[in-house]
Amino acid sequence: MKIGIDLGGMSVKAGLVNDDLKIVYKEAIPTDIENGKEKLAKDIIGLINRVAEKADGKVESVGIGIPGDVDKFTGRVIYCNNIPLADIDLKGEIERETGIPCFINNDANVAALGEVLAGAAKNYKDAVMITIGTGVGCGIVMDNEIYLGCNGAAGEIGHHCIEVDGLKCACGRQGCFELYASVTALIRMTREAMEQNPDSKMWEIAGSLEKAGGKTSWDAMRAGDAAGKAVVDKFIRYLAAGLVNVVNIFQPEALIIGGGISKEGEYLLAPLREIICRERYSRGKIQADIVIAELGNDAGIVGASQLC
Amino acid sequence: MKIGIDLGGMSVKAGLVNDDLKIVYKEAIPTDIENGKEKLAKDIIGLINRVAEKADGKVESVGIGIPGDVDKFTGRVIYCNNIPLADIDLKGEIERETGIPCFINNDANVAALGEVLAGAAKNYKDAVMITIGTGVGCGIVMDNEIYLGCNGAAGEIGHHCIEVDGLKCACGRQGCFELYASVTALIRMTREAMEQNPDSKMWEIAGSLEKAGGKTSWDAMRAGDAAGKAVVDKFIRYLAAGLVNVVNIFQPEALIIGGGISKEGEYLLAPLREIICRERYSRGKIQADIVIAELGNDAGIVGASQLC
Repeated sequence: MKIGIDLGGMSVKAGLVNDDLKIVYKEAIPTDIENGKEKLAKDIIGLINRVAEKADGKVESVGIGIPGDVDKFTGRVIYCNNIPLADIDLKGEIERETGIPCFINNDANVAALGEVLAGAAKNYKDAVMITIGTGVGCGIVMDNEIYLGCNGAAGEIGHHCIEVDGLKCACGRQGCFELYASVTALIRMTREAMEQNPDSKMWEIAGSLEKAGGKTSWDAMRAGDAAGKAVVDKFIRYLAAGLVNVVNIFQPEALIIGGGISKEGEYLLAPLREIICRERYSRGKIQADIVIAELGNDAGIVGASQLC
Repeated sequence: MKIGIDLGGMSVKAGLVNDDLKIVYKEAIPTDIENGKEKLAKDIIGLINRVAEKADGKVESVGIGIPGDVDKFTGRVIYCNNIPLADIDLKGEIERETGIPCFINNDANVAALGEVLAGAAKNYKDAVMITIGTGVGCGIVMDNEIYLGCNGAAGEIGHHCIEVDGLKCACGRQGCFELYASVTALIRMTREAMEQNPDSKMWEIAGSLEKAGGKTSWDAMRAGDAAGKAVVDKFIRYLAAGLVNVVNIFQPEALIIGGGISKEGEYLLAPLREIICRERYSRGKIQADIVIAELGNDAGIVGASQLC
């Protein structure tokens, strides 16, 4: 048995994962980001100990996916978005207090590993997973292992430029993919289209400009609204541009699309497939399989449990 | 001893490579693209046999880099730019006629392997090499092996989009990197600037619009010409955008820049380094080493010789 932990800004979700990569027990606690790093580490250690008891203490390892960067050599957290973990030796503390070997990695990486080992890409060994959320996350798996690059920071597809003179990104670049293909970008495009189209059904569907969300334009499109369809088309065009880039660069066995937006199903996947199949550079019969992530939030737990 | 062959549109260059990855003997023949595939195959086999004699027949393997795509499973050439090789079993014929195991791969891939094993990136195992020529070539080496992707076509950095609404590419996409960062693109930008600037020193340096080449704008810049400097700045801005994308996606140990343009040395490398260091996404001390290719045309021979 192994333990996998998905450490997010709202909750710390732990799962006990068996040899068939099934989660046999789950437990979650709120992420206490208010009372300092020692308290948070103590909370996580307590959670691990409780989950380990369910396996009669027979736990081989614990893996943690975090929304941040980890030093690939020491296992120490370098940076963690809004969570106080960067200045403590979390790996060392967990190992000392629980006696279980601990491994930490980026959350997009472990989700990709989960989908490759037990989810949408379980028939493959090489895959790239793109998670469309507030930003655009990416995990690269090669030969069933996370590809980290020389410094643990590989896979920043969200910060590859698709418009040289494009929008300014907080990272310092211009035209980053996530400024055009994240849910944040979709909501921005939706609100811009609403302001330009006072008669659009998006107004009725959202209720107000402030309430417009990532589903508004899709729902409007399905209700026959032209402005809604134009937003969806624009978003898909940008998203496809970056996804074809991923295919042309990696030619992965599978390209996995995750995040809440993947709930749009074929409304999203059909046009994406059409553009990717038309624009990809490779000749020949073998091509990347384009799939929607299957494990949802469990991908992080399953993937983290298999870190080593 | 191993034989490496660089098969180009003008010549077939063969080298005998020793265990220290030094070329101890070289021979070249013109590439006969006029008299059919059987004749060309016969020429190549004759060349291999002559080079093998210099090693007293003690040759472990022969590797060939071609400007095209190879089926990663069968070793057959799927596509070869302007050279009649796609419809024959070149690997099989060579093995039957010479008795030496034969391996074929893309020329950008083998050049990258050569630079990693014996050239500019010889202290590293993971590197991405970008070759700026008529197009933009790319070879990805991971753990001292060429990364091929699921179908042998990985690494088409030249066809990753950096301008969603950009120029139309022959590949079917818009805004491909090589339309902005190849020597072909540089010459186009140079000629456009000459037409817009009748007083530019580029006219005197080139002699005429038709004679303007990849060096014209650099020479003009060094002679104090503002229009020439503007061309160089524009070209470097686009090139850097794609190179930062490579760094943010791969975080390779080394980013190798090859092709004739790399002869501009620090005039090219200094501004590229400045932009890449400013814009790359990774935190921490370990970063990609940005280097100029060292082996020139020999990279293809050395890299090809190490295919297996």
